[in-house]
Amino acid sequence: MTIRIGLLGCGRIGQVHALSIKALDGAKVVAVADAMPAAAEALAATTGGAVRDATAIMGSDDIDAVVIGTPTDTHFDLIHGAARYGKAIFCEKPIDMSVDNIRRCMDAVGAAGVPFMTGFNRRFDPNFAALRARIAAGDIGALELVAITSRDPSPPPVSYIERSGGLFRDMMIHDFDMARFLMGEDFVRLHAVGSALVDPAIGTAGDVDTAAVILTTATGRICQISNSRRAAYGYDQRVEVHGAEGMLRAENQLETTVEIATEAGFRRDPAQHFFLERYRAAYLAEMTRFIEAVADGTPAEPDINDGLQAQILADAATRSRETGDPVDL
Amino acid sequence: MTIRIGLLGCGRIGQVHALSIKALDGAKVVAVADAMPAAAEALAATTGGAVRDATAIMGSDDIDAVVIGTPTDTHFDLIHGAARYGKAIFCEKPIDMSVDNIRRCMDAVGAAGVPFMTGFNRRFDPNFAALRARIAAGDIGALELVAITSRDPSPPPVSYIERSGGLFRDMMIHDFDMARFLMGEDFVRLHAVGSALVDPAIGTAGDVDTAAVILTTATGRICQISNSRRAAYGYDQRVEVHGAEGMLRAENQLETTVEIATEAGFRRDPAQHFFLERYRAAYLAEMTRFIEAVADGTPAEPDINDGLQAQILADAATRSRETGDPVDL
Amino acid sequence: MTIRIGLLGCGRIGQVHALSIKALDGAKVVAVADAMPAAAEALAATTGGAVRDATAIMGSDDIDAVVIGTPTDTHFDLIHGAARYGKAIFCEKPIDMSVDNIRRCMDAVGAAGVPFMTGFNRRFDPNFAALRARIAAGDIGALELVAITSRDPSPPPVSYIERSGGLFRDMMIHDFDMARFLMGEDFVRLHAVGSALVDPAIGTAGDVDTAAVILTTATGRICQISNSRRAAYGYDQRVEVHGAEGMLRAENQLETTVEIATEAGFRRDPAQHFFLERYRAAYLAEMTRFIEAVADGTPAEPDINDGLQAQILADAATRSRETGDPVDL
Amino acid sequence: MTIRIGLLGCGRIGQVHALSIKALDGAKVVAVADAMPAAAEALAATTGGAVRDATAIMGSDDIDAVVIGTPTDTHFDLIHGAARYGKAIFCEKPIDMSVDNIRRCMDAVGAAGVPFMTGFNRRFDPNFAALRARIAAGDIGALELVAITSRDPSPPPVSYIERSGGLFRDMMIHDFDMARFLMGEDFVRLHAVGSALVDPAIGTAGDVDTAAVILTTATGRICQISNSRRAAYGYDQRVEVHGAEGMLRAENQLETTVEIATEAGFRRDPAQHFFLERYRAAYLAEMTRFIEAVADGTPAEPDINDGLQAQILADAATRSRETGDPVDL
Repeated sequence: MTIRIGLLGCGRIGQVHALSIKALDGAKVVAVADAMPAAAEALAATTGGAVRDATAIMGSDDIDAVVIGTPTDTHFDLIHGAARYGKAIFCEKPIDMSVDNIRRCMDAVGAAGVPFMTGFNRRFDPNFAALRARIAAGDIGALELVAITSRDPSPPPVSYIERSGGLFRDMMIHDFDMARFLMGEDFVRLHAVGSALVDPAIGTAGDVDTAAVILTTATGRICQISNSRRAAYGYDQRVEVHGAEGMLRAENQLETTVEIATEAGFRRDPAQHFFLERYRAAYLAEMTRFIEAVADGTPAEPDINDGLQAQILADAATRSRETGDPVDL
Repeated sequence: MTIRIGLLGCGRIGQVHALSIKALDGAKVVAVADAMPAAAEALAATTGGAVRDATAIMGSDDIDAVVIGTPTDTHFDLIHGAARYGKAIFCEKPIDMSVDNIRRCMDAVGAAGVPFMTGFNRRFDPNFAALRARIAAGDIGALELVAITSRDPSPPPVSYIERSGGLFRDMMIHDFDMARFLMGEDFVRLHAVGSALVDPAIGTAGDVDTAAVILTTATGRICQISNSRRAAYGYDQRVEVHGAEGMLRAENQLETTVEIATEAGFRRDPAQHFFLERYRAAYLAEMTRFIEAVADGTPAEPDINDGLQAQILADAATRSRETGDPVDL
Repeated sequence: MTIRIGLLGCGRIGQVHALSIKALDGAKVVAVADAMPAAAEALAATTGGAVRDATAIMGSDDIDAVVIGTPTDTHFDLIHGAARYGKAIFCEKPIDMSVDNIRRCMDAVGAAGVPFMTGFNRRFDPNFAALRARIAAGDIGALELVAITSRDPSPPPVSYIERSGGLFRDMMIHDFDMARFLMGEDFVRLHAVGSALVDPAIGTAGDVDTAAVILTTATGRICQISNSRRAAYGYDQRVEVHGAEGMLRAENQLETTVEIATEAGFRRDPAQHFFLERYRAAYLAEMTRFIEAVADGTPAEPDINDGLQAQILADAATRSRETGDPVDL
Repeated sequence: MTIRIGLLGCGRIGQVHALSIKALDGAKVVAVADAMPAAAEALAATTGGAVRDATAIMGSDDIDAVVIGTPTDTHFDLIHGAARYGKAIFCEKPIDMSVDNIRRCMDAVGAAGVPFMTGFNRRFDPNFAALRARIAAGDIGALELVAITSRDPSPPPVSYIERSGGLFRDMMIHDFDMARFLMGEDFVRLHAVGSALVDPAIGTAGDVDTAAVILTTATGRICQISNSRRAAYGYDQRVEVHGAEGMLRAENQLETTVEIATEAGFRRDPAQHFFLERYRAAYLAEMTRFIEAVADGTPAEPDINDGLQAQILADAATRSRETGDPVDL
């Protein structure tokens, strides 16, 4: 059985998913849509799919599932449309900037009974996935503390920052999902701090570029997260987890395994810079899992509730950072 | 010129300092004192010093400096006595459990004009000292974030915990000093969380064994600290510092450089377990600096104000953990 | 322009190349051939190419290039056939077990003026390629010594060993090519030793499973190679190069970046075990280069002379190991 | 019981041993001798020993053991003298440049029945000692291959080279001993190559500065050694051992554990440069073992036969390098 996909959004992330689908045996792109005709046509050529408009795709009988990679403010309508027509849905994060809207999407998806997967690709990174499998296998005993470091190579333009919802919703949301994924217990309290140290213009725009958060669970487990919009040495993506019997850590992926030793010491490559390169395997594994879930009817994770919970944490962190006080969840 | 030392306290830390002094050319132990005569006699034999009582040592003409390694509640009187007789003072941390008492010691020391050094040995660890020198040299540009991880191999007995002043004053005080040492800017706000995850009896005793703190400075720089009373893989002592142009990190010292590769993967040794082994070089460098400061009259660091400031942070963290709210400093 | 490929040999390595070609924009598989009809049909289905016999492929007008992945003893005829019909040729190593035969192939290829590339995939491994680029850039100054370690995860069946030509021709030939690739100067003398330490049956079959070779150049540069048919910790593929100003080394690729720290120490994953996984990027880069060379007429490397020179070294090493004496080249 | 030491030779290595003895409880330096009165007096002041001449020391009743750190050409007479007077002997490597002379020393020592230890300090390096303990514990199964890399930070003056006996006797002799120490089986054949790549003047002086050797045992085990008189990145001292079930490797000791990450990548410190710093722990452990062996009458290792065997290998390597042919041992 081949899952027939309608691709909504033909920008960078849409192209990534198209490439993943092309590499998979059990799925094909049947149709693509984008507000920019040229983008849609280019991806149609690459995938062999037809250009249609988004509404048409949702109503098409020859479409089993939609992959939504359009701007965030279009997600709400597309999810409702796809659910109405009984299509399986893969939606990029964030599902919506409003927690209320996500809840309404959740209702619509639940009522329609369609599979839904949220695009938290990092869960599928082979390193993080292996780390979590080891936690689950009990390799470090009972969990005590999770520490996540996430730093972009360089900040996006301030124009992007302005409509991003802020660092906690735009960037740290990935880390909130990772924290939930690894901790396996709900957080009950959160305290966030943040500053504009990288670029004062980001501060002027009302956002921060450097931030740290502490979260705690009801049983007293602790999670530390730090984010920055800048890292000279590449895309810094690390996780460290402590348990009663030891520690697990996932280190950065470097560009090569080559080391040079000179008078200055021993030098290895920077971390892979570009998120598409760093998470290439994750994007493929994520889409593989979605296709599989659609094909065999198993529940896909991360689901729409995971998208909701991460957004709730991002909202709380935004509030905590603004007020300077912790927030109970 | 040889600095003549009176050693007050012949327990484990007194022995460490005695050994350091023995290895140095510019100093010798002239007299030792301890509440336990056997301990004093043993160290007298090793060092070639005479056994005297503490009061006698402070009043002795043949003593230039005292090294205080007695129980914390005796520090106040010993510092005042030594200051009165014009002796240079090296005092183990914490100087006193009461911030007010430390302030009174500070006044006495200031009035007497004697050199005073606080025993924050980690500043002298070759790794942390090198890391700080690189910050000062501008190797990573303007500082943004400091992250300190500090985990003991295993918890002390609950009887020790009960009179320790709590994790923040007994253990994290070292990290507060390290944070100040590296950050080079005062902290203005602090939020601490903590739990008893290692041993419920520690919780019953009113303390925590797992804790995390966020500190911020007036310019928005951030410091994250995490502590645990347990680390299966040795004495975990790491520092990571981010700046505009890069990151510095000091990793653990492992027992050897040997790696074994088998079906299970590539395995290196645990981190050095024992604090005396891990910080041997630091203890020697610390005493070297004290002797040097006494000999040439240069101001010693960390000084008594450093001891005070760390205690203020430890008190604030204790309060923040108890109330659940941040504390302004 | 799309390069039209005829794939000769549909076994494991043929499938690897087919997959690479599928992923490339500038080429497509037009026809496939294999002595086993089922293998040919399976690969035809995957690639969209037609099943033809090898002779037909070489004479086809709709074929620009052949990729030869058939058993070694068929290479000679296929190369001659393809050269006669003016097809570009990619041929797996070894080109032939006989140095004389390779010379005759070289003549035929030279006379026909067709592009020819030898399948020494490791030159295209991103790590080794980066290492060599740094040598070329002068990062470690004038070259002094190259050390290559190459160990298979486990030995092949003795039946394979018996018709393999021996370890030096079957396995170390890759390292001889790597040595030439990195050294950039011809070797003039070689001394090889070897033993059957992994499996006595390999010794009974007249071969060795553990071997070391020293090669020297006219200017006195030195190369050390060691091989084993066994490595408990994965597929061990390392290169170390020393120059006047430093050292470069390419380390193994581990399965993930995850490290676990327990009482036993710090443990990372084994090296990637399977050669197709370890050299996936190399196989793709190799075929990319071949297609490019065919398309733009640039000389492809490694060429047929590289295949010849590696075979000459492998023959010499075999002889040296048997006689116990060095061989002049 | 305190072992009373006579120190013969007050140069750099004599000072190292004097410092070790000072740090040990069971021994003291009673007398020192050196051809240069100033050197003897300086070390007498440091150790508290008396200045005597070497002959007097050997005949003194208040001396239990001599530590010989004089120029190599004086060792023969000093060993014979000390043996005659029944003193325990610690002698720096090489014992003598002539294998015949070493055999005669061996006879004298054997006849006198005095303890004798050869100064192959690297056996006592904590890393190499741990590595060997793991081989002995069977951690990697039956041994197959030993690879030793040893590179000095920079070449000594040519004047030193000229009277050094050549690289194989002066430098690689340490690695020959390490090879014997780790392999635990005699070598039967050896092939050495070498060149003057670092400094042509070394070649003019008849020596090499870059060398590689292959050794084999009767059961077919293999050892690879490489040496260079230059390493930009510090004193390169590494060992790698392969067995049926895995690999052990001892990596270099770096100056600190600090890593810096910038645009250029991740950089750690150079290896410790100075041999006294790199092998400080080894020198102390070596002298500790000697004192212990003298005190309790247990046989000390490495013994005089170890000194002889390493010299035999160094002679054979010198000859092999000169003739270009392997040498049977």
